[in-house]
Amino acid sequence: MSKRSAVNATEAGQGATSAAGGGIVVRGDTLTIQTHERIELTDVTDRVIAAVRETGVRAGIVSLWSMHTTFAVFMNESQKALHADIKRLLETMVDRDADWMHNDPDHSDCDRLNADAHLRAMLLGHSLTLQVSGGELVLGQWQRVLVAELDGPRSRTLRVQIMGIA
Amino acid sequence: MSKRSAVNATEAGQGATSAAGGGIVVRGDTLTIQTHERIELTDVTDRVIAAVRETGVRAGIVSLWSMHTTFAVFMNESQKALHADIKRLLETMVDRDADWMHNDPDHSDCDRLNADAHLRAMLLGHSLTLQVSGGELVLGQWQRVLVAELDGPRSRTLRVQIMGIA
Amino acid sequence: MSKRSAVNATEAGQGATSAAGGGIVVRGDTLTIQTHERIELTDVTDRVIAAVRETGVRAGIVSLWSMHTTFAVFMNESQKALHADIKRLLETMVDRDADWMHNDPDHSDCDRLNADAHLRAMLLGHSLTLQVSGGELVLGQWQRVLVAELDGPRSRTLRVQIMGIA
Repeated sequence: MSKRSAVNATEAGQGATSAAGGGIVVRGDTLTIQTHERIELTDVTDRVIAAVRETGVRAGIVSLWSMHTTFAVFMNESQKALHADIKRLLETMVDRDADWMHNDPDHSDCDRLNADAHLRAMLLGHSLTLQVSGGELVLGQWQRVLVAELDGPRSRTLRVQIMGIA
Repeated sequence: MSKRSAVNATEAGQGATSAAGGGIVVRGDTLTIQTHERIELTDVTDRVIAAVRETGVRAGIVSLWSMHTTFAVFMNESQKALHADIKRLLETMVDRDADWMHNDPDHSDCDRLNADAHLRAMLLGHSLTLQVSGGELVLGQWQRVLVAELDGPRSRTLRVQIMGIA
Repeated sequence: MSKRSAVNATEAGQGATSAAGGGIVVRGDTLTIQTHERIELTDVTDRVIAAVRETGVRAGIVSLWSMHTTFAVFMNESQKALHADIKRLLETMVDRDADWMHNDPDHSDCDRLNADAHLRAMLLGHSLTLQVSGGELVLGQWQRVLVAELDGPRSRTLRVQIMGIA
């Protein structure tokens, strides 16, 4: 599920890292998400909860960071019907077939024709900061951590950094 | 204004927590916001400033987390006219009366008919990270911390986690 | 490029600050961005990377905070064509010439007629949290940290707070 190995500076963001100083633990981890559709939401809550528990951190914060421009992370309810609505809203707000300059070979060297994916990810966001209290991820009743593939199918990476008092 | 009691893991996110290790303080607190309209913006800046001061943290970060899917937290100016504009923009971007699947009993067991509230909160965001410097919350001249009720009136909770050097 | 001086509480957010406790370093810094157009994207990635390296922090987090209501910070690819698309999307989603109340002297004492700038910044966001691992800012292949001027030209400030284990 997650890669665990030492990293160096040039590999920052890949694999798991662990550092401790003065009672503080900072642990980084990467979650891999294999997507199957062009637009697809995946619930990664259980994996984030597991990563938090593994650190033994009692109180602190969790930073989630998408390692891709066209892959977003955000919070909402995990319900198939709502996810269809989210997809529909993104498609309405950002028209895939508009004449975006990013899709125009005269102005762009990107051949994925994925301007819509960049813009949709931007609206959802690439960074989410959560809290750890009493050794657990803080979440409200219906809250789930979701990642959004906007230009799949692809293999995607979400980086999890947990920092706090063990 | 805020609840203060010990919490355990199953109550993560409720009440105030305090932990310290190696010179670092992590303090969690919950702010309760009673809303009166379906869509309503509330300025909670003074309460966040008070929470920061109470910790004695001189330098660090503040994580704000909405405990609800249909309740957002973000930053902007606190002006009645602008708040009316924000409400209008949300209503324009996400049509309450579209045939959202989340509101369709054939696809959803939610009877609040609040797909629009989920989608509008998603656009504003549920997480905001601020900074503490010199013992004070870092804010620019017109900046205020706002919470957005999108499916009220209800009693809402915003979790505040402050982490830094005391 | 960045201001470095002691700060006190009333100046929170201005200049550079540095605090350390129990092996943890918290360093605040301000980046100044001079903009030249009303709407303009600027890539500040290299400056954020430099700020991270200067702290000597090996593992931790980086909080970026816009000091203005009409100036946003977010992540995306740094490509001229895509930036034109982002500008176009913002102009489509938020009509500058709609009869916003914030621009109406009967309801607002703001004479900048910049309701669109407030609303566009709100959609992009004012806060971004990144990670430090192996002493380096964690970024994916095409990822760049961008700031968005929405009501320029002006001189703008982005606050960078780095917190972690040195």
